Amino acid sequence: METLKDKTAIVGIGVHEFSKDSGRTVWDMACRCIRDALDDAGLTPPDIDGIVIYEGEAVEQQHIARAMGIGNLSYFGDCRWGSGAACSQVLRAAMAVAAGAANNVVFVRSITDSSKTSLPPVFIGELPSARAIEWDFYNPFGLVSNAGRSAMIVRRYMHEFGIKSDQFGWVPTVCREHGAKNPNSLFYEKPITIKDYQESGMIVEPLRALDCYTETDGAVAFIITTAERAKRLKQRPAYIMAAAQSMADGVELMTSYYRSVLSGLPEIGNVGRKLFAMAEVASKDIDVVQLDDSYAPLVPMQLEELGFCGRGEGAAFCDGGNRMRVGGELPMNTSGGSLGEGHIYGLNHIFEAVRQIRGTSTTQEKDVELVLVATGAGGPASGLILRR
Amino acid sequence: METLKDKTAIVGIGVHEFSKDSGRTVWDMACRCIRDALDDAGLTPPDIDGIVIYEGEAVEQQHIARAMGIGNLSYFGDCRWGSGAACSQVLRAAMAVAAGAANNVVFVRSITDSSKTSLPPVFIGELPSARAIEWDFYNPFGLVSNAGRSAMIVRRYMHEFGIKSDQFGWVPTVCREHGAKNPNSLFYEKPITIKDYQESGMIVEPLRALDCYTETDGAVAFIITTAERAKRLKQRPAYIMAAAQSMADGVELMTSYYRSVLSGLPEIGNVGRKLFAMAEVASKDIDVVQLDDSYAPLVPMQLEELGFCGRGEGAAFCDGGNRMRVGGELPMNTSGGSLGEGHIYGLNHIFEAVRQIRGTSTTQEKDVELVLVATGAGGPASGLILRR
Repeated sequence: METLKDKTAIVGIGVHEFSKDSGRTVWDMACRCIRDALDDAGLTPPDIDGIVIYEGEAVEQQHIARAMGIGNLSYFGDCRWGSGAACSQVLRAAMAVAAGAANNVVFVRSITDSSKTSLPPVFIGELPSARAIEWDFYNPFGLVSNAGRSAMIVRRYMHEFGIKSDQFGWVPTVCREHGAKNPNSLFYEKPITIKDYQESGMIVEPLRALDCYTETDGAVAFIITTAERAKRLKQRPAYIMAAAQSMADGVELMTSYYRSVLSGLPEIGNVGRKLFAMAEVASKDIDVVQLDDSYAPLVPMQLEELGFCGRGEGAAFCDGGNRMRVGGELPMNTSGGSLGEGHIYGLNHIFEAVRQIRGTSTTQEKDVELVLVATGAGGPASGLILRR
Repeated sequence: METLKDKTAIVGIGVHEFSKDSGRTVWDMACRCIRDALDDAGLTPPDIDGIVIYEGEAVEQQHIARAMGIGNLSYFGDCRWGSGAACSQVLRAAMAVAAGAANNVVFVRSITDSSKTSLPPVFIGELPSARAIEWDFYNPFGLVSNAGRSAMIVRRYMHEFGIKSDQFGWVPTVCREHGAKNPNSLFYEKPITIKDYQESGMIVEPLRALDCYTETDGAVAFIITTAERAKRLKQRPAYIMAAAQSMADGVELMTSYYRSVLSGLPEIGNVGRKLFAMAEVASKDIDVVQLDDSYAPLVPMQLEELGFCGRGEGAAFCDGGNRMRVGGELPMNTSGGSLGEGHIYGLNHIFEAVRQIRGTSTTQEKDVELVLVATGAGGPASGLILRR
């Protein structure tokens, strides 16, 4: 079976400062970070012939192309599902360059989720109606936010395995420790302790404020090309060893309550199996992980689904934080992730994965060969394994 | 350079009756035509592990999967740009199976554009805001429909090449002749003559009512898999010899008025060059074409861009209709297309292309080896060459 293994690479990365109020339009930020990604790779706008974005972006491919002097595009697409789309779009860009549909593809996301100041999508309602119908069964009972929807799954997870909510606190604590060393983080030089976590307000039981990501203004861009072209560019390539996405049976976005088992994240499990099979490596071979930490308790569940620990052992794995810290058994979200850096729907996780491969992170692990990224915990999911 | 050439095939097709009022939900119609496509291919729902749809569909992949007993999905995506997305999504499905991201991918579109009765997307506004801003410059001048927006381009085309609007009438006339023989057409047994065209009301000068597609209820589904697997299935495979998409410099959806040349469709030209290069054939090798006939005058422009005739010669090519009829030099829209069958955003064009390859059309051309499909005239575009 032919696969994408090692055929493509991320060769350029750009990031726009993360903030609570960028004072810029999403268009402006998108172009700035694409320019940086081009400079990083040693490419110029006319080298780009493909752009992939998220669904519902205010600014589309043609707007970016026009503003930057990128010419004709022979590949463009978008993907829904929020964070779950992040690695999906790397997969799609990789497929496009591997299949010769384009030579150099940009993947960008630019958002003003925090300031909500500029160029929001003009969608009033933003849900396909069949999905809205599902939510009609939850909204009347107060499940009106993703935090509330996730809380139901977390409750069940705690019940089944006798987990105390304080154990989850090590996830944001370590993420904030990592983010505190990252000048691009919203939380630069602002670490927290487990005590801060325990004292933080309850948002939706059992989720505390520090369990939940912070809405962010910012942008991230990548350039993906073939492994062959990657060798001639400026940076050490981050080879895309494997990329995968999954929707499992009975999936809904954060509300897959009709499944027989509620305490798992089967999409993440499927993505993991697909990634390991494609890359021909095992969980023990992974040096660093970047996991979806939109809600902290979903991190131990991902560790279980990805085989880094046994079923029900995720919270114990996180306990005390040492395993997740740089220098530990499995350094996690080394730039801070959604909890400790900012929430760009998983793109900052991929950005950091590339830096770990290059050896240029602000919280660098030694001798990194393989980094696994998973995004979309609690709904349709996707993942990557990047190789040095 | 590695390409997708001949690596994949369309192996199953399903269609839901086209009508002005289906009396069914889009969900229901989608599942019915996927079921038919599975039966056609000799596959069952659990064989499917990928689904691609259009952006903004009311019904998403997980709803279809749940309703049909399709299990886990390892590939899913969507694409914007209306008709321009039709061949794009075949490209994406083909890339996914070629790259091993999925084994058997469904592409479906199900709409109630005519009856507007059931499960519309809940979008109120449906445009990314940067695109809405563009349109702020046209809407105040009355350019509030795609017909009006296209009329500007058509006017310029007529002016530059001295074309009379009656010449365009042969496109709907031939489409309706073809559709009149197709029991699934909205216009079954309802051919028109060039006189009917000349007498039909003006919608936006120079476009007459019979120049414009009719909103339709209906659904079409395809199953795409690898060429290798295709050989073991029930039907003669329609091999995907080439697939491509394009956005050219300065593109807007039907309003690319800032280009130096307004009388062309550069995306269709780009798609054509990419298709012919990938397939290693020339326009003279094509037996049948399915072109975007949302607005009739865009057909001669496509013929020029695709190299079937010289610049400015498209209208003369269409004159009298004989070249476009089955048995003619270049049979076109043999099921009737958007003007003579129904408007499913190009999916019915692809459906008919597969039937021509199989030899099962209601208006079958003899000895068809190669069919070219182009969709998205007047904006981002895509295309296919299918091979017997």
